[in-house]
Amino acid sequence: MKTKQIAIVGASGYSGEELVRLLLSHPHAELSAVTSRQYAGQTLAQVFPKFAHHARARGLHFSEPNAELLAKRAEIVFLALPHGVAAEFATPLLRLGCQVIDLSADFRVKSAAVYKEFYAHDHPAPELLSQAVYGLPEVYRAEIKRASLIACPGCYPTSILLPTLPLLRAGLVKPTGIIADSLSGVSGAGRKAELDYLFVECNESVRPYGLPKHRHLSEIEQELSLAAGTPVILQFTPHLIPVNRGILTTLYLAPAQDWVAARAMDELGGKMAACYQAAYGVEPFVRLLEGKALPDTKNVVGTNVIEIAWRLDPRTGRLVVMSAEDNLVKGAGGQAVQCLNLMCGFPETAGLV
Amino acid sequence: MKTKQIAIVGASGYSGEELVRLLLSHPHAELSAVTSRQYAGQTLAQVFPKFAHHARARGLHFSEPNAELLAKRAEIVFLALPHGVAAEFATPLLRLGCQVIDLSADFRVKSAAVYKEFYAHDHPAPELLSQAVYGLPEVYRAEIKRASLIACPGCYPTSILLPTLPLLRAGLVKPTGIIADSLSGVSGAGRKAELDYLFVECNESVRPYGLPKHRHLSEIEQELSLAAGTPVILQFTPHLIPVNRGILTTLYLAPAQDWVAARAMDELGGKMAACYQAAYGVEPFVRLLEGKALPDTKNVVGTNVIEIAWRLDPRTGRLVVMSAEDNLVKGAGGQAVQCLNLMCGFPETAGLV
Amino acid sequence: MKTKQIAIVGASGYSGEELVRLLLSHPHAELSAVTSRQYAGQTLAQVFPKFAHHARARGLHFSEPNAELLAKRAEIVFLALPHGVAAEFATPLLRLGCQVIDLSADFRVKSAAVYKEFYAHDHPAPELLSQAVYGLPEVYRAEIKRASLIACPGCYPTSILLPTLPLLRAGLVKPTGIIADSLSGVSGAGRKAELDYLFVECNESVRPYGLPKHRHLSEIEQELSLAAGTPVILQFTPHLIPVNRGILTTLYLAPAQDWVAARAMDELGGKMAACYQAAYGVEPFVRLLEGKALPDTKNVVGTNVIEIAWRLDPRTGRLVVMSAEDNLVKGAGGQAVQCLNLMCGFPETAGLV
Amino acid sequence: MKTKQIAIVGASGYSGEELVRLLLSHPHAELSAVTSRQYAGQTLAQVFPKFAHHARARGLHFSEPNAELLAKRAEIVFLALPHGVAAEFATPLLRLGCQVIDLSADFRVKSAAVYKEFYAHDHPAPELLSQAVYGLPEVYRAEIKRASLIACPGCYPTSILLPTLPLLRAGLVKPTGIIADSLSGVSGAGRKAELDYLFVECNESVRPYGLPKHRHLSEIEQELSLAAGTPVILQFTPHLIPVNRGILTTLYLAPAQDWVAARAMDELGGKMAACYQAAYGVEPFVRLLEGKALPDTKNVVGTNVIEIAWRLDPRTGRLVVMSAEDNLVKGAGGQAVQCLNLMCGFPETAGLV
Repeated sequence: MKTKQIAIVGASGYSGEELVRLLLSHPHAELSAVTSRQYAGQTLAQVFPKFAHHARARGLHFSEPNAELLAKRAEIVFLALPHGVAAEFATPLLRLGCQVIDLSADFRVKSAAVYKEFYAHDHPAPELLSQAVYGLPEVYRAEIKRASLIACPGCYPTSILLPTLPLLRAGLVKPTGIIADSLSGVSGAGRKAELDYLFVECNESVRPYGLPKHRHLSEIEQELSLAAGTPVILQFTPHLIPVNRGILTTLYLAPAQDWVAARAMDELGGKMAACYQAAYGVEPFVRLLEGKALPDTKNVVGTNVIEIAWRLDPRTGRLVVMSAEDNLVKGAGGQAVQCLNLMCGFPETAGLV
Repeated sequence: MKTKQIAIVGASGYSGEELVRLLLSHPHAELSAVTSRQYAGQTLAQVFPKFAHHARARGLHFSEPNAELLAKRAEIVFLALPHGVAAEFATPLLRLGCQVIDLSADFRVKSAAVYKEFYAHDHPAPELLSQAVYGLPEVYRAEIKRASLIACPGCYPTSILLPTLPLLRAGLVKPTGIIADSLSGVSGAGRKAELDYLFVECNESVRPYGLPKHRHLSEIEQELSLAAGTPVILQFTPHLIPVNRGILTTLYLAPAQDWVAARAMDELGGKMAACYQAAYGVEPFVRLLEGKALPDTKNVVGTNVIEIAWRLDPRTGRLVVMSAEDNLVKGAGGQAVQCLNLMCGFPETAGLV
Repeated sequence: MKTKQIAIVGASGYSGEELVRLLLSHPHAELSAVTSRQYAGQTLAQVFPKFAHHARARGLHFSEPNAELLAKRAEIVFLALPHGVAAEFATPLLRLGCQVIDLSADFRVKSAAVYKEFYAHDHPAPELLSQAVYGLPEVYRAEIKRASLIACPGCYPTSILLPTLPLLRAGLVKPTGIIADSLSGVSGAGRKAELDYLFVECNESVRPYGLPKHRHLSEIEQELSLAAGTPVILQFTPHLIPVNRGILTTLYLAPAQDWVAARAMDELGGKMAACYQAAYGVEPFVRLLEGKALPDTKNVVGTNVIEIAWRLDPRTGRLVVMSAEDNLVKGAGGQAVQCLNLMCGFPETAGLV
Repeated sequence: MKTKQIAIVGASGYSGEELVRLLLSHPHAELSAVTSRQYAGQTLAQVFPKFAHHARARGLHFSEPNAELLAKRAEIVFLALPHGVAAEFATPLLRLGCQVIDLSADFRVKSAAVYKEFYAHDHPAPELLSQAVYGLPEVYRAEIKRASLIACPGCYPTSILLPTLPLLRAGLVKPTGIIADSLSGVSGAGRKAELDYLFVECNESVRPYGLPKHRHLSEIEQELSLAAGTPVILQFTPHLIPVNRGILTTLYLAPAQDWVAARAMDELGGKMAACYQAAYGVEPFVRLLEGKALPDTKNVVGTNVIEIAWRLDPRTGRLVVMSAEDNLVKGAGGQAVQCLNLMCGFPETAGLV
């Protein structure tokens, strides 16, 4: 299989670092350029000693990001940049013939107006929105294979969408009143020197933040609405918890039909199981938990797997669905590599197991 | 003020240890006996070196629990025992003239049938249920003052009831469809040598457990129903998070009246604020957060304070209420001491600030 | 007992915050001013919600630091500032008649030349060095009582000096070849927005730093030399470990006399115990561990206690001494309050138990 | 390259679990049996959900350990058992023709008398001691290649021996007065349901333990003595710190020649660098840090790499050497797989990068 030349723009943030980790071990990718304004001129191994023992890390230096140079050295470019900045690089890179896998929020929502509402500035490249494909392989596998611009989903959206979309599509749950309560490790905040994310401020602390209108709602509601065939408004509460990695999401949903009777419960339980099995039974990175097992972030950290479990509550008539993922892998770099594999015709799990 | 002689039965668990900490510094209490089957014969300072510098800790040895002896040495006895066992001690202690403050679940629910449903065995002392007072001072202050048997609320119930009861009582929220999503530190599981609570199994891990029918629902729903004047069924999902102490609860509620319009929102916001102010404005241990502040367990750990904040979501029409408490203080030992203070006519904050 | 008016300059760092915590509960101190350039104008409760329930916190606002104003509002001023800056405030405050308790390094070393060697700039107020008293109550109690300028020891120095000084003074250990290996919680690095102290960079990480010539060596060696009566050079390796608070120091010392024989060991063990007992037997904040007990930071966190244990190793002929303290209490704010108590004639343990 | 059939006895402890992780991804190994008395009958994926997505994990069930059956299913057997128990399996497995890689302490010391001194019971299979090879590839590579019984070093020994052996062999440091101060993550204590290792007892805690005569001293001193050509007695202090994985060791050594002069320092520094370079310059799993870099466990966790850095202290004349490793990889399972690779003629890094 032909090796692809890959560049990462913004390789010193947590998502960028995770991409580096994954691509250094990828059997069909060659990391030919990594950029970082902060560390330009230093070797990859100086900034991240943990990569020093990778033979392929040895020649790599961080450089200033420059679209022309990147286009000469890479066929596919990952953007691990803040929103707004990512689009500035996507435009010239696409023009120069690169394929772009963007991990920022810039191309996730299809409407420039929605983008402005949630990100508080005009979209920097609205003309590209129509060609961007939302990089959720379990949903858009076919589109990703032929895309030149991938908008990788955010970490929260992945943890919410994968458990919810099949149920909405199958009409098993109501599109109204959905609640997502999410717990995220601190790497989700990025590698930023801010007081709020100091060890002492996060350790022995648990706190909600960013409610009720978190930016990720824009893409989540877009995808939920597409699956439901009707506009979906989500209640979403993110919390910060003292772990490095991992997102645990608990979803509260209402079954579409009234069912609180032992027999109806069995029937609905069977439909739910069948729905999930149909959606994800052969997916390499979705683990449907059985029996008494419940998701635990420690079972997925470092992997591209999302765990999903659900419970019907006969007392409330409600459905509780839980998911666990690594916010930096299935929620960022791993999913991006999964997209890369699809775009290049590599095995979908290459470099991810 | 006359000093009271106090005993703690089961003083080597996490709740018991916290009671020791609080009572050693209490201005009007004298800890005259501590029991522990496991550590009987050892001094308090040998088992818990951190107490060695308290002058009052010096004479204290752990003894085997014995109701006759305890009744000779103490006027008030705290029970920090597993459910089922607590009732066995409460019965003789009450007969011998002691007042009993029970931190277990044994006397929290008023119905022996509900107890059996949730705890899977017959109630060990159903004849005492009618005299037990639920030890939530913000709700049952008058009753606590004249009680001889206090059933201290569980840690989750306190974090859920205090934010919810005033709204239900005032009819501001619907009694249906309430959801409580709670995150608890590991001390909530008790000092038990079980694999699930080893450092390596809890650190870098976040996980739900015990859903959808957690035992604490029995007392929570009892109190919610009393406040609402109608049976309330709660959706409750507890999660285990890697902190020693602290519970963060996020509640999802539906305002009683439709209000999604800017003006109605202001009005409802005003009613909410007034409702909480009326309920807790002068409470010494309830902190209503203002402005942009949100609860954070690190602001309450080690204190008897519960923080409460709320947000009306104009997009969903829902009300999100959040609380933070220390599960071992306001959720256990601190609340128990608050009850002690009320029972004895001490200042309610004695030993708690 | 007459209440003293107290001010804290630099009250928003970790040491300053700890001073606030201790002084709000101090029976004879009234906190009349807190300064912070960063938070000037905000109330104490806005910046630190955890203090909001202290009645005495209510009127307090952070102000810009101004010596004239501080001298009007306080008789005693704590400086919790970076080195270099502290001296700038100490000079006018002393002139205006205040007593100053400085938690920085500015007045710890008696020689301006040594200061310059270790801190890389000229001493900002060398004329004050002779009047400053090193604020280690167990050693300089008499001097502290009549001092107007206290130089509180650093957190590492306290953890090293208290276990070592009595042995050197008694001539039980050689003054040569001493090694101190210390482990510090992250609050020791201060509340600084730097990448190195982000949660993700510290959690699941253990690392040495600042060796072999850490700044604290200047004061440690000064005090060790005074006790030994001869210059002492120390080997010191600090490490950063993922806890909020606490320092654990392990010291390696050589007994002054060769003793590796069972009988000599008993004799030396007896001398060691007698030496520590004589030095600290009645000290309120030094806990000499007996039997098999070893120091553990969790036994001292939140208290002003330092735990000390020692072991003679018959295989190596060496003495291993271990200490545990809370770097923000006995290593900073608590020790400073202990000095305050001595200066004002309050009970030495006031506000500290 | 021919695939080898591999079994793991005791696969549900932390070392065993790590072996499973490594062998499931090993290109030339096929895990054909895993045993666990506790979990016999359950699938690997039920006990460790995180392995469920490995295609090769699917058929695997935990079985009761039985030497006859194991010998039928595997050519090479890893023993991840407590000391004493491991020897009971090694004897029949070797007789049945298997090669054995033992992760316990049973075959690490060459003298049954030393074993008894440190482990407090007679050696269970002294006749095998002479054929066992100490599984430290950087030292015994040739012997490992032709061994049938490997005694994998302990986690502390690896972190101490690799930095020290080259210096002793080269005569650059004195064989006397060596001190090793080590900090270990909690997984080093094993997956044991004991109160001491509960999350709440370890989190926010740092503590020394097991000094001054830890069991690992037996093997460490054996290997140090062999390298020095003279008996070496080590001062060793282990500490428990709240991380899942990782050992950080700080070593204090005396250069063989007096050197405290700037010029001699340069010369000695050069010799040190040359010595380490000669020993480890081409080793795939030893990272010699340059410049200002110091070891950090977070740089090695999950890898088979050990980081080493050193500092000459011109003030004390001493040499400080620091190392960082993952106690479960280079300190246990990873090193065992490295031995496997050598024994089977696989590339030494197979399955380890």
